[in-house]
Amino acid sequence: MSDKIVGILGGRGGQLGRMLAASASLLNVKVVVLDSGDYAPAKQVVASTSKELAHIDGSFSDPAKIRELAEKVDVLTVEIEHVDAAALEEIRVASEGKNFAIHPSPSTIQIIQDKYRQKQHLASHDLPVSEFVAVESSVESIATVAKNLGLPLMLKSRTLAYDGRGNFVLRELGQAQDAITALGNRPLYAEKWVPFLKEIAVMVVRTADGQVQSYPPVETVHKNNICHLVFSPLRSRDASLSARVRSVAENAIKTFTGAGIFGVEMFLMDDGNIFINEIAPRPHNSGHHTIEACETSQFENHLRAILSLPLGSTTMKVPSTVMLNLIGHSSSMAEITNTVNVALTTPGASVHLYGKSECRKGRKMGHITIVADSDAQLRSRLRPLLESLPSSSSEEIEKYASASREPGFSDPTPLVGVIMGSDSDLPVMLPAARILDRFKIPYELTIVSAHRTPDRLVEYARSASSRGLRAIIAGAGGAAHLPGMVAAMTALPVIGVPVKGSTLDGVDSLHSIVQMPRGIPVATVAINNGMNAGLLAVRILSAGIPTLIDVMDEYMKSMENEVLGKVEKLKEVGWEKY
Amino acid sequence: MSDKIVGILGGRGGQLGRMLAASASLLNVKVVVLDSGDYAPAKQVVASTSKELAHIDGSFSDPAKIRELAEKVDVLTVEIEHVDAAALEEIRVASEGKNFAIHPSPSTIQIIQDKYRQKQHLASHDLPVSEFVAVESSVESIATVAKNLGLPLMLKSRTLAYDGRGNFVLRELGQAQDAITALGNRPLYAEKWVPFLKEIAVMVVRTADGQVQSYPPVETVHKNNICHLVFSPLRSRDASLSARVRSVAENAIKTFTGAGIFGVEMFLMDDGNIFINEIAPRPHNSGHHTIEACETSQFENHLRAILSLPLGSTTMKVPSTVMLNLIGHSSSMAEITNTVNVALTTPGASVHLYGKSECRKGRKMGHITIVADSDAQLRSRLRPLLESLPSSSSEEIEKYASASREPGFSDPTPLVGVIMGSDSDLPVMLPAARILDRFKIPYELTIVSAHRTPDRLVEYARSASSRGLRAIIAGAGGAAHLPGMVAAMTALPVIGVPVKGSTLDGVDSLHSIVQMPRGIPVATVAINNGMNAGLLAVRILSAGIPTLIDVMDEYMKSMENEVLGKVEKLKEVGWEKY
Repeated sequence: MSDKIVGILGGRGGQLGRMLAASASLLNVKVVVLDSGDYAPAKQVVASTSKELAHIDGSFSDPAKIRELAEKVDVLTVEIEHVDAAALEEIRVASEGKNFAIHPSPSTIQIIQDKYRQKQHLASHDLPVSEFVAVESSVESIATVAKNLGLPLMLKSRTLAYDGRGNFVLRELGQAQDAITALGNRPLYAEKWVPFLKEIAVMVVRTADGQVQSYPPVETVHKNNICHLVFSPLRSRDASLSARVRSVAENAIKTFTGAGIFGVEMFLMDDGNIFINEIAPRPHNSGHHTIEACETSQFENHLRAILSLPLGSTTMKVPSTVMLNLIGHSSSMAEITNTVNVALTTPGASVHLYGKSECRKGRKMGHITIVADSDAQLRSRLRPLLESLPSSSSEEIEKYASASREPGFSDPTPLVGVIMGSDSDLPVMLPAARILDRFKIPYELTIVSAHRTPDRLVEYARSASSRGLRAIIAGAGGAAHLPGMVAAMTALPVIGVPVKGSTLDGVDSLHSIVQMPRGIPVATVAINNGMNAGLLAVRILSAGIPTLIDVMDEYMKSMENEVLGKVEKLKEVGWEKY
Repeated sequence: MSDKIVGILGGRGGQLGRMLAASASLLNVKVVVLDSGDYAPAKQVVASTSKELAHIDGSFSDPAKIRELAEKVDVLTVEIEHVDAAALEEIRVASEGKNFAIHPSPSTIQIIQDKYRQKQHLASHDLPVSEFVAVESSVESIATVAKNLGLPLMLKSRTLAYDGRGNFVLRELGQAQDAITALGNRPLYAEKWVPFLKEIAVMVVRTADGQVQSYPPVETVHKNNICHLVFSPLRSRDASLSARVRSVAENAIKTFTGAGIFGVEMFLMDDGNIFINEIAPRPHNSGHHTIEACETSQFENHLRAILSLPLGSTTMKVPSTVMLNLIGHSSSMAEITNTVNVALTTPGASVHLYGKSECRKGRKMGHITIVADSDAQLRSRLRPLLESLPSSSSEEIEKYASASREPGFSDPTPLVGVIMGSDSDLPVMLPAARILDRFKIPYELTIVSAHRTPDRLVEYARSASSRGLRAIIAGAGGAAHLPGMVAAMTALPVIGVPVKGSTLDGVDSLHSIVQMPRGIPVATVAINNGMNAGLLAVRILSAGIPTLIDVMDEYMKSMENEVLGKVEKLKEVGWEKY
């Protein structure tokens, strides 16, 4: 625990300070907020408990107000990086030797608030960034850079940029003057165009002495340059991706000074390469889901870090989560209210409204976090929310919250993979698919032949877990190698279905599948019993979806009743006429 | 969403109002608090956003203050049932026809705040309560009642009782005068002594029109009559228990009027019978874990109910949770601080401090909720917290947070059951146990013979899931019926290990286990391959404990390296000398 008083340099949105303050109250940590107005979002959720600790009405860029705040508190932190870093540095120097700290350090804020310096800093530490170069605010300078880096070219303001403001995509040289005007004649730099596959972010918390700990990576989706959706965990065919992006993010944050949480935004390229896009030295929109979905929220971990308390676990406590930002559509709250009302009828959805005094187009008014027992459940829960947004296109809804699979086609977010060595195995494997349909388990069904498509086998097995599968059903006949070879290349449970061939009555398949050597198990079911493979998959999934136990109990009860019905019939009709 | 302003009649502890207010701010719901002092716990987390909505300094039993609050708000609710219910009823009558509501209804509060009337109400609706009877505050009356209901006898104040205050256990008739004195000459009643096995509670949320929805039942542990620990989910050998207690709790809450959350405390008897002990018409200590562990917290559901918003899902979103109350040990916060510091190093632990101005012995200063991927992980996380409490006995620590199993003995909170038909199967099954040890999976190992202990088989299989098991490994030889019969009586995945007998090379066991009929699968591994059964159990558990995927990947990598080592050795030594 800590008796230190925390000062929050707040402003712009105010929601980060609000969530930080709410987190502080859980630990009885006293908070003083500097922000404009008496009813700023953070001030609403933390009433001053004394005159001395009254909140301050003012701007994060006013040195006098910053000093006033610093005098009241033991630790100063920021919810926005566009603060007066020079003033912070002066305060830091003046307080040296006193029991007072600023987190993250003013020098970290200084580096990060100038995006060009930020890129230089990252590049100088051999961290992966795309090509970038300084550029003058002149048509000639832009033309020279465009010649080197190519078109389209990303022109960015070095400072005071957020939510895409301060970015200009130069598609042809003739737009150079437009760009200069749009970016307000501020200092610029240029980045080589990055045709990324996905945007990824990692929240990293750093202690004052440089220990770092990262949250599981997330996929972020932007819309009109504003964060729109954040999915976690990150799914990928590349089983090593999560570890790689965590490592890049952690290494990046190690190069800075001061304590706190950082958001690291990255681009994933087609070839698997990663580039760091931008770093935020504060709680970040791509970490809001941590409140409901992780063992410790980003806000609490920021507090712990700046108060020199032990860091909290960053592990996810739910299987799947998504965050949806509630962005003002106009000056009316009507659209926000409409989506919130949908959220109130959505299981697993938590509403966070920010108490902002008025709605504006493009303003972050709140967010909704959904948790679910699987990606499939998550996306079915997300769908009505996306449908409620006036800005949602049907393509977007299909992409991020596709409706359940059409019969006969694979689900986009499967929990079970049903594979077979040959299309001739399909009649045996279809009953497995029908069982999964009946239990509403999302699955994919395809052909993977151990002997005829060995590369496909390797890719399928190696990527199964990182794509989100939790079990695989593999059917094969004869020298039935598929189930065992898949099991050798995944840590998931593999169910083997021996398919009866034209000779040996399936005993060849059975023995090929069941008699695995020590170390690699295959869960073998009876010969040709695809149905039992489906039922076994449902039972296996119940280890992560406990409600399936009740559903399976009901299924077993219905089987019992069916047989008891036959008992009755046999009694009534007599066995000779039966 | 709702524009209604909520008034909280607060007091005594203040933490329920605080958590309710924190929940309200997430929905932008405005709250006005009536409680003593300017810095009452709820007032700290909800700053007034206008003069008109300023909090009120006063008591929940002061009719004038209650009226003052009522005039400011649209919905009035309580965090304590010992409010002036008559004043509330007057306000309700005066406001009839206006857009104003009191939840729960004053009549509900009136019934519940008088425990004798509460019991009469429940009994009149055929709800299960233990025998109770009115008693005068006289030695004679107590003696008469004791003659009828027996000793020990529970004497209770009808009103103003909480946390065991207002209860007196009469162990012998000579204590009658002591009881009258201790209970302060207030109106009394007596309850027949209930030698319960466990205390159980269910939170139920009720809409104004009588729809009810319950949370999963919890086991509560009291210490010095104050709630100490709350475990969820409830584990039991009786697979029907959870459904039964939910039904009793829901039926009880249906009999009242008004909206909101209710806590239903119950006793579970040795014979499986349930008695309702007490009902609280408000958020309750046995529902605090819902903040971290359920899809909607009890506080948010209370708000939704009283604001006529749709109720939120009550499903647990984590596999296992426990709440530990932080009770003042003295007037110093030192012990609380000590336990909080332990919590800050405990993964999955969330600290909730209530911002109370001073610590007192027996005062609820905060609570800690732990979430975990299994009961075993939960209890290992709970252990250091219990050890940090000055009041913990070693028996208590062993009972509620036993350390991990000694080798060779069963874990008290197993995830896997390892069973075999005969002790002669032990050599085949031991490698399964060793694998589970290696992967730190809690398990139990015992003998269950299908043919020689059929009743034990039924009990074992039927209770497996409700006791917390997620998979069963069953080994058997010859006419190997154990795995299949267990699979027929549980919805859990069952792994079958064919044990080789003295004839037929184990093919008899293999076919007996694998060739199950459609409907009931057994995950069969190779003959005598207990090790693979253990590994398959680990893979199955990864469906609920995703971190096991990485651990299994490492294990498979180490196997690979072992074989590659032999490749090198064969190359160096030559095959003739190998």
